[in-house]
Amino acid sequence: MISFEKAQEIINREIDSLVIDHEPVELYQPVKYILSIGGKRIRPTLVLMACSLFSEQVTRAIKPALAIEIFHNFTLLHDDIMDNSALRRSQPTVHEKWNKNTAILSGDAMSILSYQFITDCSPDILPDVIKLFTTSALEVCEGQQYDMNFESRNDIKVDDYIKMITLKTSVLLAASMKLGAMIGGASSSDSDLMYEFGKNLGIAFQIRDDLLDVYGDPGKFGKKIGMDIIANKKTYLIIKALEVAEGESEKILRRLISTNDINPAEKITIITGIFNRLGIREMAEIKSKEFYNKSLRAFDLVTVDTHQKKSLRDFAKQLMERES
Amino acid sequence: MISFEKAQEIINREIDSLVIDHEPVELYQPVKYILSIGGKRIRPTLVLMACSLFSEQVTRAIKPALAIEIFHNFTLLHDDIMDNSALRRSQPTVHEKWNKNTAILSGDAMSILSYQFITDCSPDILPDVIKLFTTSALEVCEGQQYDMNFESRNDIKVDDYIKMITLKTSVLLAASMKLGAMIGGASSSDSDLMYEFGKNLGIAFQIRDDLLDVYGDPGKFGKKIGMDIIANKKTYLIIKALEVAEGESEKILRRLISTNDINPAEKITIITGIFNRLGIREMAEIKSKEFYNKSLRAFDLVTVDTHQKKSLRDFAKQLMERES
Repeated sequence: MISFEKAQEIINREIDSLVIDHEPVELYQPVKYILSIGGKRIRPTLVLMACSLFSEQVTRAIKPALAIEIFHNFTLLHDDIMDNSALRRSQPTVHEKWNKNTAILSGDAMSILSYQFITDCSPDILPDVIKLFTTSALEVCEGQQYDMNFESRNDIKVDDYIKMITLKTSVLLAASMKLGAMIGGASSSDSDLMYEFGKNLGIAFQIRDDLLDVYGDPGKFGKKIGMDIIANKKTYLIIKALEVAEGESEKILRRLISTNDINPAEKITIITGIFNRLGIREMAEIKSKEFYNKSLRAFDLVTVDTHQKKSLRDFAKQLMERES
Repeated sequence: MISFEKAQEIINREIDSLVIDHEPVELYQPVKYILSIGGKRIRPTLVLMACSLFSEQVTRAIKPALAIEIFHNFTLLHDDIMDNSALRRSQPTVHEKWNKNTAILSGDAMSILSYQFITDCSPDILPDVIKLFTTSALEVCEGQQYDMNFESRNDIKVDDYIKMITLKTSVLLAASMKLGAMIGGASSSDSDLMYEFGKNLGIAFQIRDDLLDVYGDPGKFGKKIGMDIIANKKTYLIIKALEVAEGESEKILRRLISTNDINPAEKITIITGIFNRLGIREMAEIKSKEFYNKSLRAFDLVTVDTHQKKSLRDFAKQLMERES
């Protein structure tokens, strides 16, 4: 089976050599820009790895893998407008570098471009591939809508949160795994197991992301610590803390998550203190581990020799142990 | 062959009964809203008519026809954000009724939804259907980008303008005709002729639209006269006038199309006066007629009995004679 590094190298090369120099340049330059500023390109890399689990011919998975990456970047582009973010991967966002209208329209073009790439697969699996892609794409939109809804709500339960991150983040990882498997010729049940593997790994990954925001090592974590707290973001930690906090802790927490009228460093200190007293870090670690184990149980059931699965299993482990 | 009215009735009924009540409601309500506020639904109606030219089974064209209408409404929704329009079909636009983020995200969902509907066709034509749809969808984005580019340019030539409206407006009419034909089982050459029919009719239609803005009968035309002039829109009339005007007329014209610092009624009077002196109305009518005739020549070559073509021919004629 192909390694993560090898698969990523193929994807990087393919993205670098993508010809997106059509006219009008005003439409396609931002597409080229957002694809070129990198990121880990985990999703397309996983498509290739999942494909190689079932077939040695990974080249036929390249175009559909790029479709997933183009779609993912389209959602980032539009999310950045909605969130009013100035930076993406330490570079100016498209609406900052150009303007909002350009960002809207280039994003629209990327959404369509992703369909151009996804349909570059064998006609016998085309209907199922498009169905998977379309369902997942709609779910990503639904997840983004729930995330926006949560901003103004303080009554979110852990289950609501898991549902939101499943839609917003996990289904595209799940779809990447399943898509690769389908192109590799996996059986329907193996393809479904790969979906479960990706979905649960994605949830574990997102909770780990929430943890790193507060408990990451500032030297290793690429971003500043506590940014989610400053942004009043509804993370697993905040939602769990609101669920278990009582008395004075609950009062302080509810007041702090609705205000920006406090020194940021102080806000981080107070909220982290509450997390520590309530044991939120451990609860989040247990929850993340729970989904990680669930993902591995699904992966174990895939009917491929265990030694063939090493690269993907290592990747999953690294994802859980990552510090940035 | 099915009549325009009958085909439109089917489309209206199908749109009314569309179930778009998924969760989260914040995402799907605007989708339902923009589809419900009507419009003539010309494109999906044409899909059914084109299909019925080749087959009596028009029901199988319904879902792909709805795909075209959903896609078209998605572009209107996002165009309205970009143009900062407050009204669409005399109703508040989505970004006015809700907000810009909702409008962006609901539009994104509609773009994906349109793919869900377009793929509901026979697997043997699916690859070609998706290719047609995707190419046309990208072209519509390109047309919108050219249209936005034109706003800040005063050196547009008639050919640039024809290219822009071809992309922004005509290709989707062309694709509607071709899609219907393909679903109806038309030969590849007949499908291409239907595309040519739709494309040239679309161009003729847009020039007629530009004409009506200035020379429409205020009693019959649904909108106020001269709105394109007030908005400094680059219409066929303005571009042609800039091309042929000389001396004082050209100076006045160039000054007026770059300013809002004049009484609107006066601006309309002066510019219409220049159009009249230069014979722009007649030139536009000749150009529109030229594309109309071109569209009919393509339609005439479609290998279907002439009497079968009556409904579509009547429709084209009505489109050219319309006063609103």
